[in-house]
Amino acid sequence: MKLATLKDSTRDGKLVVVSKDLTRCSEVGHIARTLQAALDDWAHAGPRLARVAEGLETGAQPAMRFHEHDAASPLPRAYHWADGSAYVNHVELVRRARNAEMPASFWTDPLIYQGGSDSFLAPRDPILLEDEAWGLDMEGEVAVIVDDVPMGARVEEARDAIRLLLLVNDVSLRGLIPAELAKGFGFYQSKPSSAFSPVAVTPDELGDAWDGGKLHLSLLVDLNGKPFGRADAGVDMTFDFPRLIAHAAKTRPLVAGTIIGSGTVSNKLDGGPGRPVAEGGAGYSCIAELRMIETIAGAPQTPFLKFGDTVRIEMKDKAGHSIFGAIEQTVMKYEKA
Amino acid sequence: MKLATLKDSTRDGKLVVVSKDLTRCSEVGHIARTLQAALDDWAHAGPRLARVAEGLETGAQPAMRFHEHDAASPLPRAYHWADGSAYVNHVELVRRARNAEMPASFWTDPLIYQGGSDSFLAPRDPILLEDEAWGLDMEGEVAVIVDDVPMGARVEEARDAIRLLLLVNDVSLRGLIPAELAKGFGFYQSKPSSAFSPVAVTPDELGDAWDGGKLHLSLLVDLNGKPFGRADAGVDMTFDFPRLIAHAAKTRPLVAGTIIGSGTVSNKLDGGPGRPVAEGGAGYSCIAELRMIETIAGAPQTPFLKFGDTVRIEMKDKAGHSIFGAIEQTVMKYEKA
Repeated sequence: MKLATLKDSTRDGKLVVVSKDLTRCSEVGHIARTLQAALDDWAHAGPRLARVAEGLETGAQPAMRFHEHDAASPLPRAYHWADGSAYVNHVELVRRARNAEMPASFWTDPLIYQGGSDSFLAPRDPILLEDEAWGLDMEGEVAVIVDDVPMGARVEEARDAIRLLLLVNDVSLRGLIPAELAKGFGFYQSKPSSAFSPVAVTPDELGDAWDGGKLHLSLLVDLNGKPFGRADAGVDMTFDFPRLIAHAAKTRPLVAGTIIGSGTVSNKLDGGPGRPVAEGGAGYSCIAELRMIETIAGAPQTPFLKFGDTVRIEMKDKAGHSIFGAIEQTVMKYEKA
Repeated sequence: MKLATLKDSTRDGKLVVVSKDLTRCSEVGHIARTLQAALDDWAHAGPRLARVAEGLETGAQPAMRFHEHDAASPLPRAYHWADGSAYVNHVELVRRARNAEMPASFWTDPLIYQGGSDSFLAPRDPILLEDEAWGLDMEGEVAVIVDDVPMGARVEEARDAIRLLLLVNDVSLRGLIPAELAKGFGFYQSKPSSAFSPVAVTPDELGDAWDGGKLHLSLLVDLNGKPFGRADAGVDMTFDFPRLIAHAAKTRPLVAGTIIGSGTVSNKLDGGPGRPVAEGGAGYSCIAELRMIETIAGAPQTPFLKFGDTVRIEMKDKAGHSIFGAIEQTVMKYEKA
């Protein structure tokens, strides 16, 4: 089943079921007005939405055209967004670029940060930025949306709570990160609103690419129309989603609709730090990673995002069909009213 | 106007308007079913709720008995909870206790962390804790709930967006903090679910104790029935609420219903680190602060919270009447189902 939220005059938009090929959708207000409402009562709403999805494929269900441009993030605002750093290769590179050793515990103890969740960008919304000097970067990631998870959940319980998967652009302001992290309380201003893919899908839509913990497909990250990242989300993911969820639930329950992110998808490959797509490598899911490799080699060359730059993040199945639709965002100057 | 959320069978509870003396309340489902719904459309709902509040005082409005025990946190789950450290005295003490210098920028650049907001405790709910060794501590604070705040809002705009004030127990796990902050991404497991006062009030309820930026009243923090903290929330608050809100909105908008906390209320007094209430001082709004003073004097003596300990956090007006009702929570052993 594939779900999306259409923009309307409300803050939470309107839930629709989307056809597998992303061309058509059906309104489901009689089941749940919003995705959060469906997640609040998934045991009841989930099976009913699945029947609509079936009808949509067979043609038995009234449908309308689905346009990715009309979609908000599946949860336009959420109660909980926590982002892991499951690709520890990425973290190790960050450290190496500034000549810092990564603690060995990072390979066994997941790193996660509490993100802002009240104002997600729609997948085709511009990224509004006040100042290019803040060092805007994309971070291409996979995320899951979970059902209620009790405090102290075991990894197996965490696995069973995964309801939906989707993609995310975890927008980052690299120029603000060092000073903010130096204060010791984590990210705040340096992590503005994130954007999610137009469509969230149930795990069964992914076939054997989803093994219950990792998604074994390439994350396609394009910068200004050129391939920038083709990293496989199933490779080098040190902590799978059930581990991240269990970590998040150690001292508090997670409420249905909680979104847990993978962190920037990053492949090590051949034991080295990765190569650009143009050189036959898997590339990078964020600019910072390429800059780190450039730094290790001498000095960073690739600039962060400028006004007018466009980022596209997508994932295709083995037949080449888009699974989640595309995040495609252009950076624009923010002019305050 | 005073507002509360009564627990019911739903996740968000039922909004009621509460009488000034906290003894009676009126259902307002015809205006807004939940507090979030009221905040989503405050321009419309706010004046209508205020008319109910008037009728409640004059007796013109049907009412029922209000019991603080029946209340959830005013927003049982919220889209955004960010907590400042506005009482820099508190931060300076933390650092001094571990022989670390506090950067001078801390006096000019607000410190804030992104908190978990999906599963707030009700004001009389127990605090469920798996392991006493995690070092459970209360943190008594004041918080505001804001309307929509645009990205880049000026301090004056931030001031105008304050809709409600309330109290908070920002529950902390001191034993988990050092290792978590050492990882560099801020608090996560070390900040489990917070609890808020039974009642949230509009600024006009506070008379001249509220100056538009700070709340000039003592925060009453009791531990096991004895006065532990009597710090004045209007004293030594280096950054007032409009400053904290503007800081939070620097790179992203804040959605209506965002809760911004003051951080642990802490008074320096006489230039010194403060004295216990029993010695005529203003005491402390968290145990950690007393332990820091004990550490500076030699070694920490006061233990963190144990199973069975009870914390009470309240604030009274100049006539001695409770403004927000009381947070009163007992620590209990968490037994996972």
